[in-house]
Amino acid sequence: MPISPQLIEELVTANRILAREGVVDSFGHVSVRHPDRRGHYLLSRARAPECIEAADLMEFAPDGAPVDAAGRTPYAERFIHGAVYGARPDVHAVVHNHSPSVIPFSITRAALAPVMHMCAGIGRGIPTWDSRTRFGDTNLLVTNMETARDLAAALGDRPVALMRGHGCVVAGGSLREVVFNSIYLQLNAELQLKAMALGEITFLSEGEIAAVMRTRSSFTFERAWEFWCRRAGRTYDVRPMEGPLARS
Amino acid sequence: MPISPQLIEELVTANRILAREGVVDSFGHVSVRHPDRRGHYLLSRARAPECIEAADLMEFAPDGAPVDAAGRTPYAERFIHGAVYGARPDVHAVVHNHSPSVIPFSITRAALAPVMHMCAGIGRGIPTWDSRTRFGDTNLLVTNMETARDLAAALGDRPVALMRGHGCVVAGGSLREVVFNSIYLQLNAELQLKAMALGEITFLSEGEIAAVMRTRSSFTFERAWEFWCRRAGRTYDVRPMEGPLARS
Amino acid sequence: MPISPQLIEELVTANRILAREGVVDSFGHVSVRHPDRRGHYLLSRARAPECIEAADLMEFAPDGAPVDAAGRTPYAERFIHGAVYGARPDVHAVVHNHSPSVIPFSITRAALAPVMHMCAGIGRGIPTWDSRTRFGDTNLLVTNMETARDLAAALGDRPVALMRGHGCVVAGGSLREVVFNSIYLQLNAELQLKAMALGEITFLSEGEIAAVMRTRSSFTFERAWEFWCRRAGRTYDVRPMEGPLARS
Amino acid sequence: MPISPQLIEELVTANRILAREGVVDSFGHVSVRHPDRRGHYLLSRARAPECIEAADLMEFAPDGAPVDAAGRTPYAERFIHGAVYGARPDVHAVVHNHSPSVIPFSITRAALAPVMHMCAGIGRGIPTWDSRTRFGDTNLLVTNMETARDLAAALGDRPVALMRGHGCVVAGGSLREVVFNSIYLQLNAELQLKAMALGEITFLSEGEIAAVMRTRSSFTFERAWEFWCRRAGRTYDVRPMEGPLARS
Repeated sequence: MPISPQLIEELVTANRILAREGVVDSFGHVSVRHPDRRGHYLLSRARAPECIEAADLMEFAPDGAPVDAAGRTPYAERFIHGAVYGARPDVHAVVHNHSPSVIPFSITRAALAPVMHMCAGIGRGIPTWDSRTRFGDTNLLVTNMETARDLAAALGDRPVALMRGHGCVVAGGSLREVVFNSIYLQLNAELQLKAMALGEITFLSEGEIAAVMRTRSSFTFERAWEFWCRRAGRTYDVRPMEGPLARS
Repeated sequence: MPISPQLIEELVTANRILAREGVVDSFGHVSVRHPDRRGHYLLSRARAPECIEAADLMEFAPDGAPVDAAGRTPYAERFIHGAVYGARPDVHAVVHNHSPSVIPFSITRAALAPVMHMCAGIGRGIPTWDSRTRFGDTNLLVTNMETARDLAAALGDRPVALMRGHGCVVAGGSLREVVFNSIYLQLNAELQLKAMALGEITFLSEGEIAAVMRTRSSFTFERAWEFWCRRAGRTYDVRPMEGPLARS
Repeated sequence: MPISPQLIEELVTANRILAREGVVDSFGHVSVRHPDRRGHYLLSRARAPECIEAADLMEFAPDGAPVDAAGRTPYAERFIHGAVYGARPDVHAVVHNHSPSVIPFSITRAALAPVMHMCAGIGRGIPTWDSRTRFGDTNLLVTNMETARDLAAALGDRPVALMRGHGCVVAGGSLREVVFNSIYLQLNAELQLKAMALGEITFLSEGEIAAVMRTRSSFTFERAWEFWCRRAGRTYDVRPMEGPLARS
Repeated sequence: MPISPQLIEELVTANRILAREGVVDSFGHVSVRHPDRRGHYLLSRARAPECIEAADLMEFAPDGAPVDAAGRTPYAERFIHGAVYGARPDVHAVVHNHSPSVIPFSITRAALAPVMHMCAGIGRGIPTWDSRTRFGDTNLLVTNMETARDLAAALGDRPVALMRGHGCVVAGGSLREVVFNSIYLQLNAELQLKAMALGEITFLSEGEIAAVMRTRSSFTFERAWEFWCRRAGRTYDVRPMEGPLARS
């Protein structure tokens, strides 16, 4: 069955939003799990997210092999996506990014944790994966399945893992969710950076994080998605709502 | 009596200005007290402020019930507005926002206070309301009148209250005033964050704050409103002036 | 003799540039000395610099009285300009601004001084004038000649004075010069704020500052002016060059 | 042989990109080595990079003399370029800039070093050249070959040297490379500034830097160049690829 044009457009939009919000620059990428083919995923050819068009999107097999490259060069780090989809049946979308607010936490021992309700989705106990621990001095890139599986193992069942001196990976149930959590991960990092200069921080409690996650509906993502579409100059494609009422 | 189109446009503009100035993102909202119906207020349906049109504006009863929902989903936190209007006859407009410069002060013990004359309107002794104090582990949202009244009690007769791990509420005599104080609250937070890195801060004295408030005229709000309208791409609707001469 | 249209346009442009570069927001103003009438100056009516048109420009007598108000409301703080022109025959243009990077230095004891050659024009030994020292608890505004002369005395023969909890005043030989020094004062403040977090700072030496000032030509201002005109959407009006060759 | 229009356009684009990304303001410049004439280079007349057109580009002899000035005023600091081309046969493009994130490292003893894989190209052991060491109190400008050669000596065989109280110089094998390294030098400075507030930093190891440089292909520069062209409003001129596959 061919991929729906709606999903294609949503993946293009996800790229453009991440670029507009400064989460990705020329690098970083976002994928969505193939709706039909087990373990396959859709991801752009190697191109800056701001420039991506529908024709750039490619399908990849679980091991990162392009299904129909048609002359297009894939991202060298596409393996990140395949490894996460392989390890996590609950995950339907993955972002890899180099957010300039998040990286400082990957290169120090300061622990990133939710300080605000909108950021609860990043979870507690965010791990920092260091390519050097197991692979020694490399160019830090995740360019094969072995390295990618090591990263996915560090991620475990969490929504976010940092990558030392590199960036992070964000995994979730939908494109809207991973875009949302990537942007609020960046915001949380900014808030925490500012707050650390002011004194001791009161983080969200575990109970609060659980309560936010329990009551979050897709409507929260929709409201943000419409806003980000407008900022990115993309048409907003309304989604049927699910879950409890709008919040915040 | 129907609401004047001028007030409707002003409320749309208030939303757009707060979005343009970065005080709100996809979340946060601004309301105005209903000019005729006691305790009622006007507030958008649940939508990002940047996207709001006149048709999104709804009327709410004091308890947060929509007067004529017409299929529109209200903000889950509209109760904040109702509780403040109920407790404060002097208040005619309310903003709830998650300004990224203000939140760090809500999650630390650093006290936010005016450091510059334009920011005097935020007042001294700004309280931080913590939902956890009385309600324990929640999703931090103010989704009923009981919680909203607790927040309104913390606000007391002040223009601003912070909300721990969440944002703030700004209450005032007009839309122009609450927008002005929301933006200058954000600026004050930025100034204070920078100044704290430089050494001990000289805050405005109580006498200075009182002097600014005593001599502030609506002209100050008008000058800023025209500027913010231009930046937000909104038509500036001139208001007849009141009070002493322009200042600053 | 009527004011040349070129000078009028330059003053409008100066306003727009300062707004575009974030040196002024809704408040702050820039004036130019009247080319013919002794002690008189040109300054906009009370309006946000971003919105100013040629028709907003007014002429003021040395004591701040408008020459031909024609129903226009003047800035309450126009006296700053009159007092500086009165005290400083070398000054032909004045900016008053609330730059958010500069204010932190006005409310702490951290001394702002040139850290980079382009910022040498702000001078060493920048004083901070505090309205409270002589006038006690006020609204901090300079709304009469007595206060303005006190500020001008603190400025002395320097290019810059800070105003505690308020902003600063920048005085110079031309509109291009005061706009240049206002923008580079802001940049110097940003550089110094960042550098202070890194360790002890090497400031420009007195000899270096003197050398920069001795060799600075109007060409330096021209190159920047063209750039800022483009960013502000204003037509660049080429000026005949004077002094030594371009630098930097 | 006349210079190819493609190279001319690439040099104009390099100027515009550096301006759009905030690496240069009204000042700073970028040159390319003349493809045919030994030691000659192409550089704009003295103009803000954001404003530069093809007609502004001039050819300079190794000693900084314009080949055909045609009434155009050269940059006073063009000698920087000549000295670097003279000392470094491997260098084909040079940027001189005043990045506001980089300067703080030039005026303190904090050492700038790669903290992220994309920034590996700035190298380790970045020196800070101080004009005062050999030339005493000057206006800090590099306006003759003697000073420029002293700077080039400090640069040595490295890609980057800081200039105390002034900015930096970035040298590399192509326009795309020096633009890339200038932008990621700025990003590295921002990351390091943030991380230093969080605690001790884990920098890239020497082995990691070497691995990144060994495996970097021109494709990395291409992907970024397309993105920056779009942001700067310039047409992207595709380049034939060389080296290993895309990375990151």
